[in-house]
Amino acid sequence: MKKTHNLEVCLSPAIFDLHSDSDAIVVVIDILRASSAICNAFANGAESLIPVPSLDQAREYKKKAYMVAAERDGYVQDFADFGNSPFNFTPDRVRGKTIVYSTTNGTSTIEKASQCYQVVIGSFLNITSLEHYLTGQGRNVILLCAGWKGKVCLEDSVFAGALAGRLLKSGKFESLCDSVSMVVDLWKLAESDVLSYIDKAAQRKRLGEKGLDDCIPFCHSEDSTDVIPYLDGGKLFKLKK
Amino acid sequence: MKKTHNLEVCLSPAIFDLHSDSDAIVVVIDILRASSAICNAFANGAESLIPVPSLDQAREYKKKAYMVAAERDGYVQDFADFGNSPFNFTPDRVRGKTIVYSTTNGTSTIEKASQCYQVVIGSFLNITSLEHYLTGQGRNVILLCAGWKGKVCLEDSVFAGALAGRLLKSGKFESLCDSVSMVVDLWKLAESDVLSYIDKAAQRKRLGEKGLDDCIPFCHSEDSTDVIPYLDGGKLFKLKK
Repeated sequence: MKKTHNLEVCLSPAIFDLHSDSDAIVVVIDILRASSAICNAFANGAESLIPVPSLDQAREYKKKAYMVAAERDGYVQDFADFGNSPFNFTPDRVRGKTIVYSTTNGTSTIEKASQCYQVVIGSFLNITSLEHYLTGQGRNVILLCAGWKGKVCLEDSVFAGALAGRLLKSGKFESLCDSVSMVVDLWKLAESDVLSYIDKAAQRKRLGEKGLDDCIPFCHSEDSTDVIPYLDGGKLFKLKK
Repeated sequence: MKKTHNLEVCLSPAIFDLHSDSDAIVVVIDILRASSAICNAFANGAESLIPVPSLDQAREYKKKAYMVAAERDGYVQDFADFGNSPFNFTPDRVRGKTIVYSTTNGTSTIEKASQCYQVVIGSFLNITSLEHYLTGQGRNVILLCAGWKGKVCLEDSVFAGALAGRLLKSGKFESLCDSVSMVVDLWKLAESDVLSYIDKAAQRKRLGEKGLDDCIPFCHSEDSTDVIPYLDGGKLFKLKK
C-alpha cells in the first residue's frame, strides 16, 4: 500500500471531470444546505435517502407515496412534503424512513461523483468522524464542492479547507492541487470565527432574503453527529463503521 | 450611467459560460507565463500578436513565414522560433513585428473571452495601468483566470485578487461573486511577499522541473510597463490611451 494518497479539491461540479479519479473517495460538500441536511437526516434516524437530480423524478416518487424533500433556489416545491432546511429532517418525521431528496445543487453533484470508488457526504456536522474515516481508508480523496449552479461558492470552499487541512495534517495525504492550497488558506482566515467569515457569502444573502438563514449557525457547528452518509446503488445510507 | 458596475472573477475557463456577460470587459490572466509574456512583448515594441489555440494553426502560420512563439507544457515546439518565456520577447526580436502565439492555456482562454465586449490582457507587469483603465470605462468587468488545463491555479487567482481588491477600493465596482471574495482574501495573504506565497503553486514546480522558472520573479513584479494589450479582429494590439 502506498504511504500517502492524493488529495484534491474540486471547487465546482462543472470541472469535476478534470479531477475525477475512479479509485478515489469523493466527499460531496454543499454546506448551505444539502450536505448539512443529509447528515442531520441520518443523525435523526433516517433509514435511507434517494437523491434525485430532477424535480420530475421527485414528483414521480411522490405519486408512489414516498416522503419527498424538494426545493429549488431555496423554495419548497408544491408537491413536496418539505424542503431543504436541516431543521425539517426531525426525528419524528424521518426515523426509519426513506426520503426522496432533490435540491438545487447538492443532488446533481452526488450523481456526478457516483462514477468514483465511493461517495460520502461531508459537512461541519460530521467533520471529525469523516476525518477519521478518510485517514483510515488508504485511498485517494477528492473534496467536491457543490457550489451554486456551477459557480464556486465561499462556504463550501471554506469547509473543504477545514477538512483538507486535517487530512494533510494526518500525514496520510499529499497534494499538488492548487485548489487545496487555496481552501486551506481560506480556512485559516475563517476558523477563528467562521460565521463572521462567511457573512459575505452570496448564498448567505440569498437565504437571508428568503428568511431561510436560521440554519446557518447549525450548518457551521462541528460534530453534532458521527454519521457518515454514503451512496450505494443510487441511495444514501448510514455507513456502518 | 450606473454608479457602480459588476465585478466577477472566473477561476477557470471551463466555467466561463456561467460568468460570461456580453457587455463586460474581460481581463485574461495567465501569470505563468502567457499574459506576462504578451505584456512584455508589447512593452518591447511588438506591433501585434496573433493568438491561436491550436498548434496546427501555429504551424500553418510558420509556413507563411510568420514569427511563431509556441509551447505546450512548457516545451518550445520544434517548428517555432521560440517559446513562452517573457524573456524571449526581446526588443531586437519583436519591435515592429507581428508574432503568432500559441500556449497551453492562455491562447485558448483568449478565444473563449472573445464573445464579450472587450478582451484585455492582465499581468503584474501592467497592473496599475490596467486598474486605471478599467475604473474609467463604466462597464462590468470579469477577471478570467486561465488556470491549468481547466483546473484552478494559485498564481492566477492571487493576481485576480490583487486587481479585484484595487477595483473594489475604487468604489466603481461592486460584487456578489464569491470567487471575488476568495481571491481578494488570498491576495491579502500573499501581498507582503508574493514570491514566497506562490512557492507552493503547482505551476511553479512544473516550470522548476524543466528549468523554466527563471522568469517567476519578473512575472510577479508590478508595473514594468503601462501597455494594455487588447483583442481586435482576432489579433492583439497595444491599446491607444
